[in-house]
Amino acid sequence: MINDLHRNNLDKTLQEEILNVSHKLADAAQLAILPIFRSDRLFMQNKDKSGFDPVTEADKAGEKVMRETLQRLRPEDGVLGEEFEPLKSKSGLTWVLDPIDGTRGFISGTPTWGVLIALSDTDGPILGIIDQPYIQERFVGGFGVAFYSGPHGSKQLATRSNISLAEATLLTTSPEVGDQKDFLGFRGVAERVNLVRYGMDCYAYALLAAGHIDLVIEAKLNAYDIQAPIAVIEAAGGCVTNWSGGTAHDGGQAVAAATSELLEQVLPLLSPYAD
Amino acid sequence: MINDLHRNNLDKTLQEEILNVSHKLADAAQLAILPIFRSDRLFMQNKDKSGFDPVTEADKAGEKVMRETLQRLRPEDGVLGEEFEPLKSKSGLTWVLDPIDGTRGFISGTPTWGVLIALSDTDGPILGIIDQPYIQERFVGGFGVAFYSGPHGSKQLATRSNISLAEATLLTTSPEVGDQKDFLGFRGVAERVNLVRYGMDCYAYALLAAGHIDLVIEAKLNAYDIQAPIAVIEAAGGCVTNWSGGTAHDGGQAVAAATSELLEQVLPLLSPYAD
Repeated sequence: MINDLHRNNLDKTLQEEILNVSHKLADAAQLAILPIFRSDRLFMQNKDKSGFDPVTEADKAGEKVMRETLQRLRPEDGVLGEEFEPLKSKSGLTWVLDPIDGTRGFISGTPTWGVLIALSDTDGPILGIIDQPYIQERFVGGFGVAFYSGPHGSKQLATRSNISLAEATLLTTSPEVGDQKDFLGFRGVAERVNLVRYGMDCYAYALLAAGHIDLVIEAKLNAYDIQAPIAVIEAAGGCVTNWSGGTAHDGGQAVAAATSELLEQVLPLLSPYAD
Repeated sequence: MINDLHRNNLDKTLQEEILNVSHKLADAAQLAILPIFRSDRLFMQNKDKSGFDPVTEADKAGEKVMRETLQRLRPEDGVLGEEFEPLKSKSGLTWVLDPIDGTRGFISGTPTWGVLIALSDTDGPILGIIDQPYIQERFVGGFGVAFYSGPHGSKQLATRSNISLAEATLLTTSPEVGDQKDFLGFRGVAERVNLVRYGMDCYAYALLAAGHIDLVIEAKLNAYDIQAPIAVIEAAGGCVTNWSGGTAHDGGQAVAAATSELLEQVLPLLSPYAD
């Protein structure tokens, strides 16, 4: 489950090409989305309750430029995105895109939404980017890379090690988590950790990959919400599964942990509430 | 309550001097605190449960350099800070300092903690700074100034206008808010707004001053948690009171609103739960 890169059989040159493309996608999304973040444009359109949805506009603009970039650079690859129809893959590879993960945070001006970009083969994500355009932070994982760049420099990503459940910091976005069952599963873990924090959207996965927190628990996810975090966290030494310990590639309930030991402590608490 | 600057009778030259000092305080705190944020130093010391508290170290380092700066530049002013003994004012002015507001966020690597700097006379805060060193964002209010500078430029701060309670976005840090009474007061408002978000620490007040959200409700505050936000928000056109509509200068329960109309809608919901 951890560093599951052996199954990736792409040659080095192709890996480098794909890594370059993934950065180009993040750059393009950033250019499309950032002018709308915290702008009067967002505000005015958000006030219009008669149908114009500003976040959909930013979402669509971000996904559109990423799809155009892929059409030009990787026309054989499939695309699964939040805003437009899926595009079937001819290469065996599919890009899984969420132009703005954390739309409520985006509307509220918080700097914790992100652009999520994953590349998947038939077994799941092999490369992921979590990009926070406002802070200018990028978290990349896959093809042997686990890398962070931000306003104060760059570093290798590595999850925290040797943390017990009682010492752990746990994040989720909303205190309701999902439905009542999701909430109960989350609470069982929350009551056993040192610190619980809320509201960070996909930024929570980035903090886990960078070794600042230890657990993220979410529910009611879509594939495009979780595939990029899976790739980044696995590349950094952590693990992500659904609440039964199976694959979380398709979304639903997910738990991300800094170590497999921590995951093993948490899964028995979550599995009674698994979908 | 709003833009209550008429009671400030400091002359222009003194106002400029004090504004310069407040920026120097924020710069000094930033230099002291930022190297510890997300560092191995923080992590290693945080693991040591036998007594060494890393956040206290960062807190103390930040407050110490601010006090040293004041000793040099404004030796007659008083100081009220989180970490050291109060220093009595000889000038009638007192600096109210929280070197790290949001210590739990700081430990978790989230970029939503802040350095809070206020200057108060006997009637309360007349100048405030909310500084987020990691993102390099500074929100300043007082002496006729309501100003933001950040990584993508500068602008005047102004709270949002013409927002009804049903359209409003409400933030608080922890879903528990405080004790059971605090929680019930918060829930009464939360059930009537459009969007509720969590986890932003003092950054929530900055978002309100900048016009991105409309309400912040907190409880169990200290004076140094709220005096800088009061000055910044009032300078930007918003208002901050306790849950009975009185002064929030001394901490406790606080509600910040983008407009006085919004505050008037919210206070009847909160006042039954006022301390």
